[in-house]
Amino acid sequence: MIPEGDDHERLVCADCGFVLYENPKVIVGAVCSWEGRTLLCRRAIEPRLGTWTMPIGYMELGETTEQGAAREVWEEAQAQVEIDALLGIYSIPEISQVHLIYRARMLSPSCAAGPESLEVGLFRWDEIPWDDLSYPNVRWSLEYDRDMKGHTGFAPCGRPMG
Amino acid sequence: MIPEGDDHERLVCADCGFVLYENPKVIVGAVCSWEGRTLLCRRAIEPRLGTWTMPIGYMELGETTEQGAAREVWEEAQAQVEIDALLGIYSIPEISQVHLIYRARMLSPSCAAGPESLEVGLFRWDEIPWDDLSYPNVRWSLEYDRDMKGHTGFAPCGRPMG
Repeated sequence: MIPEGDDHERLVCADCGFVLYENPKVIVGAVCSWEGRTLLCRRAIEPRLGTWTMPIGYMELGETTEQGAAREVWEEAQAQVEIDALLGIYSIPEISQVHLIYRARMLSPSCAAGPESLEVGLFRWDEIPWDDLSYPNVRWSLEYDRDMKGHTGFAPCGRPMG
Repeated sequence: MIPEGDDHERLVCADCGFVLYENPKVIVGAVCSWEGRTLLCRRAIEPRLGTWTMPIGYMELGETTEQGAAREVWEEAQAQVEIDALLGIYSIPEISQVHLIYRARMLSPSCAAGPESLEVGLFRWDEIPWDDLSYPNVRWSLEYDRDMKGHTGFAPCGRPMG
């Protein structure tokens, strides 16, 4: 039903009137580099189990987007990074998600599979498993990261047209 | 409690095991311009009732960030806009919000107070009620919008340091 003063349907408890406001979720991640190589993780969980992605996951309460991205890098790839520029912002309205992908500099080449990764690794451009990436925005983020090497102050990319 | 396989505390129903994943909320808004003037709304609701802001509000399910920003402009100021570049991204971890503020071009000077606004108007720079803005990021967004006039492909601004 639509609560009084609102203009969207919400789930409302018929007994106590509690209104559940469901909102889009923020996904944060980072394209992390060390000496020209890129950190990728092979997913140990569904969806897209077994495919490769930059570290990425749900933003948590009480953190900034940059802190969330660095936390996901640590949890999924046990790597320490310094978050740099915002590379991409992708809305996926079909599943009510907003993906915010940062560029990050690894503080050392150290990395290891966290509980949600089967394996992790540092890939040169021609070693990246292009045919086995988890989602289109993994490719878009990797390509934009390469295009923006050495640049600062650029606009984040979004979903390509068409 | 922390559900199995998770690493954050969640609210879990002791009876049925339902896990409530609470995540940060996305706030979308737009600095809207018409012939050098900026669209501002005086808030008809708490918090900060009676203060001035660009149109801004909670992103809803099933929309992109740009669609959400344009929807808020319509709901709060009854103005039609074309969303342009991302001006700002502000995390407020204390209240688990992420604000995404766009630059937008009004399609006509037409505007009117929506149900959440007491009044709306198009302000020249020296007419903006600087001492009566709702939040610091209203000022930051207005200033960055002015700084970026005529520019494209710029990085969004964040919370100033210090």
